Amino acid sequence: MAGSSFGTILRLTTWGESHGPAIGAVLDGFPAGMPLTEDDIQIYLDRRRPGQSAVTTSRRESDRVEILSGVFEGRTTGTPISLLIRNTSQRSSDYGDLADCFRPGHADYGFQVKYGLRDYRGGGRSSGRETAGRVAAGAIAAKLLSIMGITVTAYVSAIGPVAVPDSVRGMSTAQILDARDTQTCMPDADSDREARAWLASLREEMDSAGGTVECRIEGLPAGIGDTVFEKLDARLAAALMSIGAVKAVEIGDGTAVSAARGSDNNDAFIPGPDGEGSVAKRTNHSGGILGGMSDGSPVLLRAHFKPTPSIAREQETVDTDGNVRRLAIRGRHDPVIVPRAAVVVETMCALTVLDAMLLNLSARAENVIGFYRK
Amino acid sequence: MAGSSFGTILRLTTWGESHGPAIGAVLDGFPAGMPLTEDDIQIYLDRRRPGQSAVTTSRRESDRVEILSGVFEGRTTGTPISLLIRNTSQRSSDYGDLADCFRPGHADYGFQVKYGLRDYRGGGRSSGRETAGRVAAGAIAAKLLSIMGITVTAYVSAIGPVAVPDSVRGMSTAQILDARDTQTCMPDADSDREARAWLASLREEMDSAGGTVECRIEGLPAGIGDTVFEKLDARLAAALMSIGAVKAVEIGDGTAVSAARGSDNNDAFIPGPDGEGSVAKRTNHSGGILGGMSDGSPVLLRAHFKPTPSIAREQETVDTDGNVRRLAIRGRHDPVIVPRAAVVVETMCALTVLDAMLLNLSARAENVIGFYRK
Amino acid sequence: MAGSSFGTILRLTTWGESHGPAIGAVLDGFPAGMPLTEDDIQIYLDRRRPGQSAVTTSRRESDRVEILSGVFEGRTTGTPISLLIRNTSQRSSDYGDLADCFRPGHADYGFQVKYGLRDYRGGGRSSGRETAGRVAAGAIAAKLLSIMGITVTAYVSAIGPVAVPDSVRGMSTAQILDARDTQTCMPDADSDREARAWLASLREEMDSAGGTVECRIEGLPAGIGDTVFEKLDARLAAALMSIGAVKAVEIGDGTAVSAARGSDNNDAFIPGPDGEGSVAKRTNHSGGILGGMSDGSPVLLRAHFKPTPSIAREQETVDTDGNVRRLAIRGRHDPVIVPRAAVVVETMCALTVLDAMLLNLSARAENVIGFYRK
Amino acid sequence: MAGSSFGTILRLTTWGESHGPAIGAVLDGFPAGMPLTEDDIQIYLDRRRPGQSAVTTSRRESDRVEILSGVFEGRTTGTPISLLIRNTSQRSSDYGDLADCFRPGHADYGFQVKYGLRDYRGGGRSSGRETAGRVAAGAIAAKLLSIMGITVTAYVSAIGPVAVPDSVRGMSTAQILDARDTQTCMPDADSDREARAWLASLREEMDSAGGTVECRIEGLPAGIGDTVFEKLDARLAAALMSIGAVKAVEIGDGTAVSAARGSDNNDAFIPGPDGEGSVAKRTNHSGGILGGMSDGSPVLLRAHFKPTPSIAREQETVDTDGNVRRLAIRGRHDPVIVPRAAVVVETMCALTVLDAMLLNLSARAENVIGFYRK
Repeated sequence: MAGSSFGTILRLTTWGESHGPAIGAVLDGFPAGMPLTEDDIQIYLDRRRPGQSAVTTSRRESDRVEILSGVFEGRTTGTPISLLIRNTSQRSSDYGDLADCFRPGHADYGFQVKYGLRDYRGGGRSSGRETAGRVAAGAIAAKLLSIMGITVTAYVSAIGPVAVPDSVRGMSTAQILDARDTQTCMPDADSDREARAWLASLREEMDSAGGTVECRIEGLPAGIGDTVFEKLDARLAAALMSIGAVKAVEIGDGTAVSAARGSDNNDAFIPGPDGEGSVAKRTNHSGGILGGMSDGSPVLLRAHFKPTPSIAREQETVDTDGNVRRLAIRGRHDPVIVPRAAVVVETMCALTVLDAMLLNLSARAENVIGFYRK
Repeated sequence: MAGSSFGTILRLTTWGESHGPAIGAVLDGFPAGMPLTEDDIQIYLDRRRPGQSAVTTSRRESDRVEILSGVFEGRTTGTPISLLIRNTSQRSSDYGDLADCFRPGHADYGFQVKYGLRDYRGGGRSSGRETAGRVAAGAIAAKLLSIMGITVTAYVSAIGPVAVPDSVRGMSTAQILDARDTQTCMPDADSDREARAWLASLREEMDSAGGTVECRIEGLPAGIGDTVFEKLDARLAAALMSIGAVKAVEIGDGTAVSAARGSDNNDAFIPGPDGEGSVAKRTNHSGGILGGMSDGSPVLLRAHFKPTPSIAREQETVDTDGNVRRLAIRGRHDPVIVPRAAVVVETMCALTVLDAMLLNLSARAENVIGFYRK
Repeated sequence: MAGSSFGTILRLTTWGESHGPAIGAVLDGFPAGMPLTEDDIQIYLDRRRPGQSAVTTSRRESDRVEILSGVFEGRTTGTPISLLIRNTSQRSSDYGDLADCFRPGHADYGFQVKYGLRDYRGGGRSSGRETAGRVAAGAIAAKLLSIMGITVTAYVSAIGPVAVPDSVRGMSTAQILDARDTQTCMPDADSDREARAWLASLREEMDSAGGTVECRIEGLPAGIGDTVFEKLDARLAAALMSIGAVKAVEIGDGTAVSAARGSDNNDAFIPGPDGEGSVAKRTNHSGGILGGMSDGSPVLLRAHFKPTPSIAREQETVDTDGNVRRLAIRGRHDPVIVPRAAVVVETMCALTVLDAMLLNLSARAENVIGFYRK
Repeated sequence: MAGSSFGTILRLTTWGESHGPAIGAVLDGFPAGMPLTEDDIQIYLDRRRPGQSAVTTSRRESDRVEILSGVFEGRTTGTPISLLIRNTSQRSSDYGDLADCFRPGHADYGFQVKYGLRDYRGGGRSSGRETAGRVAAGAIAAKLLSIMGITVTAYVSAIGPVAVPDSVRGMSTAQILDARDTQTCMPDADSDREARAWLASLREEMDSAGGTVECRIEGLPAGIGDTVFEKLDARLAAALMSIGAVKAVEIGDGTAVSAARGSDNNDAFIPGPDGEGSVAKRTNHSGGILGGMSDGSPVLLRAHFKPTPSIAREQETVDTDGNVRRLAIRGRHDPVIVPRAAVVVETMCALTVLDAMLLNLSARAENVIGFYRK
């Protein structure tokens, strides 16, 4: 089954294994005429790049992207944009003893049962490395959104027991961007320090941490998203849950809504700031989405990532013959994934939102008629 | 944009508005040869039916389903199964004063901005009534799953501040089914009583409650689901988040994973009970899904529903001209949605899982070759 | 496999069997705000209706369409439009002796092998009656096209050995519409008379005839259709080849191109009539499509239909046990299908073209930006 | 719009421009476990390769394919297979004067209108070079088909006025393969000689020729293909019409059916050679497809290609400002496309048929149940 594609009008296909010669992506359906260079993409890839600090894996990949198609004389042409990233730091030797062994918390067992064989080197296709293709393609979507005044901003809000203060949610996007440039991607210096201390202690215990990424989408007009199965929140949930380690996705007040009352949870509509007939909301419990469509308020999302399953501590498992095995995973692994995952959340949201905006172009007959009249 | 379809090989399309003449569904791609009667479906629809108790809306719909195609001499034929449910208890007069007014917490505003007009009667297409089509179609999927020994079981685990005790998660599916037949769909008599008391008090305050539905899928073999974007959890998340009031979806330990350590969160693989080479897991933090594929343990999901947005209490809003309005919603509304939503969660999971199982048939070349050799 | 849906943004799903209680269609993704009544659709259905003349089946179906959703106060709402047509003249008794027998030229054998069972009454799902759903939905697409000045016009150009004169291709669309109202749907009185005579002689011989339908799409702007696999001609070919009896599809000069020279086949571009920068073509060998996109000239198509396979003359076949059988098909069958198929060709083209136009809205970044700026 | 993907379970995405750094393809959904090397693919690419003889373009491309993912230790893994082919012989200087000029018979004008800009070098994305990605991916599908005893064989049946004798249709596939290795890909020495002579004369006249490719698919079991819109013939027609220069597609008797009688066109079913209950057909007018499903007889297709539009003879056209221009296309172009297009037809058919076979795995409930019981 072709599971490596995402989107309807704007369609991303990723390919590649952790220890193959390269990984990449094809982004089809992107509108023609937008200026695009490899630098626009590299900025995003660099945020995801391994080997950046004490809180990420020591695997070093330059992750230089090559645009192989879809751009001519510096502008997108409307044809598929093929993006190639060579793998340069494979150390497959790290994985020899994993060839016949199912790592706990990993996809190994499912792969073996499903396909009868698997590329065991670094998780093969199920490696987090696959997300480099998403980030490269999502950077292109984010650029077009940004031209339209729409920003997508993700940051780490929790690592293990360390959570950013509530005040972070009150910060402007500009403030977030300023404060986010920490090793943990937490936009709060105290939290960053505490989280790093905790990660250091975990490393000594040969253990790993989970974390939370929050994302806000600002500037999105109302009415984006479709009814029923293609609701904006349903698509965003799929986008985020498709990232390897995510185990929960929340929109707006998220899990808290089940304990809330209607009179508290409903956001009152009020006259908006843009003059006659404009509409705003007094609060944003909805997280910017009502009935599957954007409501004009910022879209607020939260994705919860499980701890990196690859830990140096010895674990119990079985091999492909069903024999009990003791396993200590060496390799080079992130003690926590969220600092590098924030940009993956951001770019997946960008792809999802842009696709929904392109689909929305045909919502009204009058607009279709108007488009072809000119 | 065609947002009313769901699934790849097994494809559901729903249609219909709350106050139109009928609602319905077309289920295409269902395998041929399974015995099917309207009674198989009606059992599920009856669980979703309004007007059943003090904790649901007083709108009375018999919700009788008619099979219009795809079944011949009592068996499915492989062609689209068309399901029709007539609306019989429309009271559109309830909605006259809502025609030009955006109800807080509803899709009204998004609809208006997107389409320029909307069927304001009972929310039109965004009404929870749309889910009747899902339930009818999902009942068919659930039947085939059940023939294969796979059960999908949902129940209410929380209503407002009232949550079922943890012991519920240790109950067998048979015990859940026995205990679930309460007005609240909570499989615990004390919780049910408490929740009903709380709902009664809310009703007096002209307010509404949120709640949580938990679902477990048992008997699912390992390896179901696809890699990358079509992960089983990504598809389930989309399935559940596409239900009107859902604001968060969790798999397994869900939001708790972000505070966990790898050594706790990883589930050790152990030799399974089915003899040589079989594999099981010591714990199930993963909720039965690893790397986007089922891992052989029960799949565990949780969906959080916001409080019913239609409340009799006066609310602040604006109308289509941007004027401030005071609004008290009369109509007939559920004080809490989860008792009727449990079966919606169940059937959406059934559709998702069966589709993934059909897609999985082509995973191995040897199976494809074997199929056509016979 | 879900084979009963067609289109990407504008998505049609049909359902129903020849002798079930009803047939129908769901048209999802249709833009909101277009005025629509059942009469708009009925006009098209009446052109496909059986029992109209000596050259069609004597089965009488009123084929009244009911709109069950997606229209509110006379306008489309952007939600799925559900269309229902009750079957009223089933005579399943005609088919009793066909239950275990494979009719030559029909889908019976394939159905049996694929699904292991089949609704043998009137061909079940493979009956031409399925096209009523297409016509009903396509009528809606044709209305929006017509508002944009785009007309889709089909007529019968050949029945058996009788072909319309070449002069027909030089007639204006208005002239075609005037002349097309014959029993054979041939826009030429002499051809109509000859064809009817020939059909009468065939009927005596208990035989049937094939025929050809030509279609022209006028007013379509250039640039519609997508590159590579979603070329406009590829989509139109699929649309027409999906009609039961079609065995060949031609665009423009069609099969003749293989014997042509480049210097003859190329259409010279010339300055167009619409002033500065406008472009036209001196000839139209391309049939209005170049490189998979419309080129501004009329789109010209031709579909070849095989003779009705149901004939009263005795035929040789086998039954489901592989025994030799002699078969004379009674029932009520069209001696030739094309007079009723012209409107099916027309509506399938309308659905295809409108979908391609909706997809085209997102081709240019500047248009996307402009849409959201307003 | 994402037009560069094809297929449902087995999904091909191609990318790349004629004069960009590379072209390629991603084949997703291919079953795991099939042995695959680059040589398996290269054999097919070599048949499409330019610069092979007097009847093809003098552009020389080695067209070496690199497998970048989806294969591990010599076997497919079930993950996307990424295929890369570097462009090495770009001579973009040939195209400088075409930058603002619409070549007759080409996609230039449509591209310009649709996207507002275009990569004019060698037709950019609309170049026939795009088909190298299809051939590379299709070779993989053809290998799995061949393991299952299904062969797909295409040859040139006509070039301009020169057509192979009818006896070719009576040749066995082995005979065709023997005889097909001519410069024209015609499996008949006399026709090949005549056609080459004719092409030589055209070349002197600075003109080009059209041609016809016939394809037969043998060994395909009955019941492959889906009903209604996903009929096997509809999918094959789309597959072939999506090849740049194809203007007509025929199945079986093709255009001839419109002049036929039912009693002649119907193929009688007879007891088959495989013993009890097996079914065969006395004739094969249907071309192996009835009601959209394979009927067990060889599938017979015919695609008509227009003459190469790039001719050295001077042509009339306009430029992007609407000015009249005289144009003589230099570059390096095939005087006729069909000798190299036969393998494109073959591989597109292989992809289409294999996808339909994968979809067919879920047709019967009993098979689904049986698969999961083991």
